[in-house]
Amino acid sequence: MSSAQPIFFGGGLPDPRLRPDLAPLLAEVMAEDAEATSYGGTWGYEGLRAALAARMAARSGAALTPEHVVLTNGSAGALEAVARQYVAPGDLVVVEALTYPGAVETFRQRGARIVTVPLDGDGMDVDALGDLLRAGERPALVYTIATCQSPTATMLAAPRRQELVALAARYGFTVLQDDTYGELLYAPDRVPAPMIGLDAAYVVHVGSLSKTLAPGIRVGWVTAPPAACAAIAGRRTDLGNPPFVHRAVARLFERGGYEAQLDRILPTYRAKRDVVLRALDEHCAGLGTWQTPDGGFFVWFQLATGDVAELEPAASAAGVSWFGGPYFSAAERNGKGIRLAFGQLPESDLDEGVRRLAHAITHAAS
Amino acid sequence: MSSAQPIFFGGGLPDPRLRPDLAPLLAEVMAEDAEATSYGGTWGYEGLRAALAARMAARSGAALTPEHVVLTNGSAGALEAVARQYVAPGDLVVVEALTYPGAVETFRQRGARIVTVPLDGDGMDVDALGDLLRAGERPALVYTIATCQSPTATMLAAPRRQELVALAARYGFTVLQDDTYGELLYAPDRVPAPMIGLDAAYVVHVGSLSKTLAPGIRVGWVTAPPAACAAIAGRRTDLGNPPFVHRAVARLFERGGYEAQLDRILPTYRAKRDVVLRALDEHCAGLGTWQTPDGGFFVWFQLATGDVAELEPAASAAGVSWFGGPYFSAAERNGKGIRLAFGQLPESDLDEGVRRLAHAITHAAS
Repeated sequence: MSSAQPIFFGGGLPDPRLRPDLAPLLAEVMAEDAEATSYGGTWGYEGLRAALAARMAARSGAALTPEHVVLTNGSAGALEAVARQYVAPGDLVVVEALTYPGAVETFRQRGARIVTVPLDGDGMDVDALGDLLRAGERPALVYTIATCQSPTATMLAAPRRQELVALAARYGFTVLQDDTYGELLYAPDRVPAPMIGLDAAYVVHVGSLSKTLAPGIRVGWVTAPPAACAAIAGRRTDLGNPPFVHRAVARLFERGGYEAQLDRILPTYRAKRDVVLRALDEHCAGLGTWQTPDGGFFVWFQLATGDVAELEPAASAAGVSWFGGPYFSAAERNGKGIRLAFGQLPESDLDEGVRRLAHAITHAAS
Repeated sequence: MSSAQPIFFGGGLPDPRLRPDLAPLLAEVMAEDAEATSYGGTWGYEGLRAALAARMAARSGAALTPEHVVLTNGSAGALEAVARQYVAPGDLVVVEALTYPGAVETFRQRGARIVTVPLDGDGMDVDALGDLLRAGERPALVYTIATCQSPTATMLAAPRRQELVALAARYGFTVLQDDTYGELLYAPDRVPAPMIGLDAAYVVHVGSLSKTLAPGIRVGWVTAPPAACAAIAGRRTDLGNPPFVHRAVARLFERGGYEAQLDRILPTYRAKRDVVLRALDEHCAGLGTWQTPDGGFFVWFQLATGDVAELEPAASAAGVSWFGGPYFSAAERNGKGIRLAFGQLPESDLDEGVRRLAHAITHAAS
């Protein structure tokens, strides 16, 4: 087994074979419009902001215009922009106990104090957040990956979304929904809409085209009230991102290419998910627990016994690796979870990777 | 005269007719390499860092490797990165009395205290900086646009560069040379080399391809000691800029396209400069003073009498506008200077624009 190629259930990456060919669109906009290679400004190209506002409005039910959208350097850049706008040094930011470490680092660099709330199979435990608030904590932001949560692959349940937004209105904080994976839905009827549709005054939404189109285009955005967007654009000093990229992607939207891309990629990712689930049924019964994710690139596998750190020698010998609970832990260390990221791996690696995981568990435990 | 098209001596913009066609290179790298559209990391593409390190080494005489270079979102993004790395809230940053307002804003957002030193025809008055230091001021950074200064179009004289770097070593501050316009040299033999060649331990250099290639590609960089570069890349949370842009530009360098671009554009900009100088001789003798700039996109015209704000109604009636001294003043307001930016304007507008300036001065004064 050690002679085989290692299999790494790595980052939240899309399949490189599923990227659209943007080169012709880039060539078009660069040939036709000198503005495409000029400074584009810190709001980003209005045509793309309009397309994203329309898509966000359709998904959420919120009334959104281009003035509600600022383009950023990926959703990671959007998190920075939101932190600068909504968090002062010393402010409290609440995050899920397992979450995107880059977001926590962004808030920490801003000088925030971080407090976590637990997650269960329905996403953030909003009752636990309520307890914090009643105990006197006053966050500036509550950060949630409500849809296709990373790493736990959960969906924040609809009643919890309503309660979360009600708490925001009552206690005067902002809900920051990181929707980076939010378009990767395999059972869309079961997934609640983005929370900005519940109350656009208390919810800021961060989106990304990294997972649906390509990470390298670095197109993310903030959806927020127009005054907040103007403040975000106004305080940004880096003169904005490449306008020819914005313009090429806007043409993709205008021509229906974004929805066509979703139609093309979602069946492939759903099939990959199903391969992972079948492999878990076959190889890992009794070794741990998992849910069927309704979207995203992850299955969250929780060990029945032992700790992920103890597994590493046997996993390395078996030729499999992953990002585990400790990596995603914002406070108390989670030693039970393994994020099986299936977006980037070819289907042929998925069954074999899960088989190696089972092998590692049984050998580490023996 | 009011029926003519207005002429705006605007931003420090290159001529859009002189941009290289990057679309074929973008198509190449996107077709050949899936990494081109993946996450590229916060250092940026090593091939382009190597090309820039080699170019910087050749220009400055410093021994530089790719580990001395981090790619950023334009030089404006580089200034942010340097501010985060070298400036703590409350630190002092010294800037030239007339300077790039975006840099001052970047330092202010970082929480810096700003103190200015005067400029004369040879750039920053380094003796005045010495007086500040001897009086007990202890800057973290001294920010200078030493070559092709904006807005004054001066070149920091070689003895002053040596004295500045000696002061940095003696008092323990970092010189931040913003070299955004530094490759636009019309008399290269008269322009001292980048200061990083004098002492790479006390000088951080910020560069840009916005003026030589195109602003929209958003390629800038920091040149600094490797440990500082690693810290800058390590604290950056936005996951880096588009790798396909970095890779396309790296191919331009590999194929000699960057030097070919300089050979193509410099005679054009020098000719534009000469048109402005001839027009000033013809129309503005006695109305103000100016120097012949050895590089950059600007002639700095200083009024013999009156204040630029008083000129505005007459200038508007004459159909000419500009960025004036007040816009670039980091402390005491400069009401004498007018930045005649000739990079973007067609030659045909330059003589007419200066003629309108003369008309405005004579009418405002009458």
